[in-house]
Amino acid sequence: MTELADLLGEMAGLAGLAMERATQALLQADLALAETVIGEHDKITDLSTQCEEKAFSLLALQAPVAGDLRSVVSGIQIVADIDRMGALALHVAKATRRRHPNHVLPEEVNGYFAEMGRIAVSLGAATKEILETRDPERAARLHQEDEAMDDLHRHLFTVLMDREWKHGVAAAVDVTLLGRFYERFADHAVEVGRRVIFLVTGKLPTDEDFRAMRERVDKLTVYPQDQ
Amino acid sequence: MTELADLLGEMAGLAGLAMERATQALLQADLALAETVIGEHDKITDLSTQCEEKAFSLLALQAPVAGDLRSVVSGIQIVADIDRMGALALHVAKATRRRHPNHVLPEEVNGYFAEMGRIAVSLGAATKEILETRDPERAARLHQEDEAMDDLHRHLFTVLMDREWKHGVAAAVDVTLLGRFYERFADHAVEVGRRVIFLVTGKLPTDEDFRAMRERVDKLTVYPQDQ
Repeated sequence: MTELADLLGEMAGLAGLAMERATQALLQADLALAETVIGEHDKITDLSTQCEEKAFSLLALQAPVAGDLRSVVSGIQIVADIDRMGALALHVAKATRRRHPNHVLPEEVNGYFAEMGRIAVSLGAATKEILETRDPERAARLHQEDEAMDDLHRHLFTVLMDREWKHGVAAAVDVTLLGRFYERFADHAVEVGRRVIFLVTGKLPTDEDFRAMRERVDKLTVYPQDQ
Repeated sequence: MTELADLLGEMAGLAGLAMERATQALLQADLALAETVIGEHDKITDLSTQCEEKAFSLLALQAPVAGDLRSVVSGIQIVADIDRMGALALHVAKATRRRHPNHVLPEEVNGYFAEMGRIAVSLGAATKEILETRDPERAARLHQEDEAMDDLHRHLFTVLMDREWKHGVAAAVDVTLLGRFYERFADHAVEVGRRVIFLVTGKLPTDEDFRAMRERVDKLTVYPQDQ
């Protein structure tokens, strides 16, 4: 059981690392770094298979019940989300390779992607942490970071749709897809958080629950500026 | 166990129907039909929850082994894919609503989306059929339809990237995202097919396996024109 949790945590760590490097490669048109992400993607896929096999053998050999059963079932669902996070980082790396030696992004939107990348990396690290600690309050905070990602994504679209956009359609298509990859990466992290909350509380939180939980967390948190 | 399979089949049927209607709404800027898809999406989400609960209670109460265990584990994975197919149909319907009374698509690309919609609907129906029959040869043929989808998607991008594209960046962004939704819908159908093949054969097929299997199927098939 611990082994499955460790494998999932390791996988989340690798997906986060892949997105960190893919973002850096994207922003700096760094082909070597993009190739590293692409070359190391198999590690995530292998871990994914290992997780599935581990979950299956736990069910087959131990027929777990109650909380343990919930852990294994959630594990099976979580592995699919982390696998997808890795695949989205791979897509970013491949876009960088496709346009090399050119930059994929017009300079105008670099700031958006630097920030979306920062949030994605933070979400990857949080996902790993949550899988290890099973802290439902931390899991609920993922939703907050996801909202920050959604905001950036929306702003990015207003930049794209602006009549002043002067980088052409091809760049707009790239920016649209890349923006989507970051947004989906965040969605999957939130989904992992929901699953962990389910694990601990036995209930899958809705968006409403997230909002309520966040308000509670916000009230509990002493912000640095309040001290 | 049969109940879980039935629920999954029903869910696949609804996801296929949603994509069929969403495509029609998209092509005809039919707001009422788009609203139907949006309004009925909850049915798919509800079935998704029912499937997860059913799978969990099967594991908890029956501690299935061997083939039955594999069925339940695959069911847990498959429900996530079908859920996503429904969500992608929902995205198409929402794009139609967002631009109404305008058409989302420039007329130039209508043909692509009509054809991608046709393939998506066929994939939805095939997914339902495969869940019911567990026919691995039929599941392998999903891959072929997915390749047809990928080809269309690639062509669509060459149209977008063409210097002659005269519909502006906003339309290009819509077309990019919509194209991606159809492509992902197909990917999820293929993933369900892979899971069913795993169920029957105990082995997850790779892309290589798919190709080999298809060649075998092609050899076995007597085409109408050969008769």
